[in-house]
Amino acid sequence: MGKIILTGDRPTGRLHLGHYVGSLRRRVELQNEGDFDKMFVFIADVQALTDNADNPEKVRQNIIEVALDYLSAGLDPEKVTLFVQSMIPELAELTVYFMNLVTVSRLQRNPTVKTEIQMRNFETSIPVGFFTYPISQAADITAFKATTVPAGEDQEPMLEQTREIVKRFNYIYGDVLVEPKIMLPTNQVCCRLPGTDGKAKMSKSLGNCIYLSDSSKEMQQKVKGMYTDPGHLRVEDPGKVEGNTVFTYLDAFSTEDDFAEFWPEYKNLDELKDHYQRGGLGDMKCKKFLIKVLDKRLEPIRQRRHEFEQDIPEVYNILKKGSEAAREVAAKTLDEVREAMKINYFNDAALIQQQAEMYRNK
Amino acid sequence: MGKIILTGDRPTGRLHLGHYVGSLRRRVELQNEGDFDKMFVFIADVQALTDNADNPEKVRQNIIEVALDYLSAGLDPEKVTLFVQSMIPELAELTVYFMNLVTVSRLQRNPTVKTEIQMRNFETSIPVGFFTYPISQAADITAFKATTVPAGEDQEPMLEQTREIVKRFNYIYGDVLVEPKIMLPTNQVCCRLPGTDGKAKMSKSLGNCIYLSDSSKEMQQKVKGMYTDPGHLRVEDPGKVEGNTVFTYLDAFSTEDDFAEFWPEYKNLDELKDHYQRGGLGDMKCKKFLIKVLDKRLEPIRQRRHEFEQDIPEVYNILKKGSEAAREVAAKTLDEVREAMKINYFNDAALIQQQAEMYRNK
Repeated sequence: MGKIILTGDRPTGRLHLGHYVGSLRRRVELQNEGDFDKMFVFIADVQALTDNADNPEKVRQNIIEVALDYLSAGLDPEKVTLFVQSMIPELAELTVYFMNLVTVSRLQRNPTVKTEIQMRNFETSIPVGFFTYPISQAADITAFKATTVPAGEDQEPMLEQTREIVKRFNYIYGDVLVEPKIMLPTNQVCCRLPGTDGKAKMSKSLGNCIYLSDSSKEMQQKVKGMYTDPGHLRVEDPGKVEGNTVFTYLDAFSTEDDFAEFWPEYKNLDELKDHYQRGGLGDMKCKKFLIKVLDKRLEPIRQRRHEFEQDIPEVYNILKKGSEAAREVAAKTLDEVREAMKINYFNDAALIQQQAEMYRNK
Repeated sequence: MGKIILTGDRPTGRLHLGHYVGSLRRRVELQNEGDFDKMFVFIADVQALTDNADNPEKVRQNIIEVALDYLSAGLDPEKVTLFVQSMIPELAELTVYFMNLVTVSRLQRNPTVKTEIQMRNFETSIPVGFFTYPISQAADITAFKATTVPAGEDQEPMLEQTREIVKRFNYIYGDVLVEPKIMLPTNQVCCRLPGTDGKAKMSKSLGNCIYLSDSSKEMQQKVKGMYTDPGHLRVEDPGKVEGNTVFTYLDAFSTEDDFAEFWPEYKNLDELKDHYQRGGLGDMKCKKFLIKVLDKRLEPIRQRRHEFEQDIPEVYNILKKGSEAAREVAAKTLDEVREAMKINYFNDAALIQQQAEMYRNK
């Protein structure tokens, strides 16, 4: 059994730098390292509908946005299988069977679900589909026999739920499914990039995101308005780098090469931070450097996006082909699942013969 | 839109007289009256698994038993579509979409679910699949656009849940699904036949059932041991007919023709009851009459069962063909569902063109 990587995003908006730093950049690295047997990246439209059931148009319009973001960030459909969740009805079938293996109280204890319910102010009016999404996520992962799920630490309880389901399924029905492991980000800053306003999380509704699809001009305006150290009023004042969004972004993006190229007065970010903390370094200078760093990263992405935008039907075609390939894999797993559960009656010659004999000898 | 009837049973055991009187006899009448456009009768193995997940063998072995009971009771695969639930994966897909339209608290209020949870002593360890089965039942009904569901009064809350889901789906996504109505039994005794021990319900675990597949001898023994009026000690004593299982069964099965044929001393059941209540009529005489009545009803069923038992592969073939026909219907509904939900991206030329133009004009 080789290494099978699976990961995805809900298509509820364009992807932003938070997604890029938190997951997308790592996926492209994983893809290019090639240390896997299969890699699946999917657009989780069925999951997006669990709390957007009354706004399918939002989900529908964002399929292409996420696909464009994937392709422009460097995911290569020759190397990874890009697919759309709703095109794999086997996932629903597996979800329904998994629902018998989890109790209601176990779902209620899931900390990720608890937090998400709070975040969405659902309280007592939680849609059942949202409440049960750890089960549907287990189906997504196991239908492809994924061994490895790149995700943040906050997703660990979801993976634990999946492993529990796998254990219970294999115990009752036989060894078919694979227990996945989480692949945590390699450095801390990758976990979460703050919004441009310094708030803990980038969020479309807060308007504090820099999107991969933003033009250079849009990005520049957002960086110029970025939250820094509110106590750093005059250039000569000492400044704080902790909680200073500009420095958090530089942590996530800048390299020594960038300094050599754009700001050779400093060898690296540590030297820049020292100066800022000592005082005598203005925010705008740092922001201009961040703009150059981001432009260097984002320009190739923007160019690729522009190219793909010129051929939207081809992007859909990539998703369609990927979905067909993914469906073949999931269908094979489901055949094994049904066989293990012994609910493949019509193909079960042994069952039919046994019962025919039983009645013949009655 | 014509009349579409849908009904089914969980394959957790052979069918007994309670099933026959409560639903199966009526189904055969409905089938033969022919007042419908389509009629579906299905074996609900997926639902049976919601509280038998750890015993799939039980479900697997009982598919053929229920199918034999159906055919021997007179269901005719030329007139009704007999199918197996798990063979229609579209039902799982629809279930997953419906789960977004129902809240957790709404499910918790469902009185049928409440009662069933109590009956099974689940309390806090309810499997999610069991908890959500009203939603999966709504998928079963609506996938076939059933207008008419023959069922007992206790199932009305389930139908109400289905209608709520249909209303919400049609309101959000457009007019695709059909609100079903319950078709209640035509007479009261049909609702529930007691066990042979006088307990309210026939139940395999209580061992108080007469099965359609029982031999005449088995049936006779069970009737002879049947609960009557415990106060009716001597023949000359007055007897009670209320709560007297023999009379409840005679209510459900005997006709004036039976009296003319087997016991012409009485014109009908009312005369027999009068005599029993006056005193001077022994239980065994009444039981012998009930045996004759039951044998008359059951003998043709036994004979048909015997014939079908000789060709088990053909019975599976009937279920297979029925499942294929049913799947075509469900797949068509799912196509409409996906189109209404606008998640048929790859077939949605308008979407692709709109987005292509948007990006061309950017």
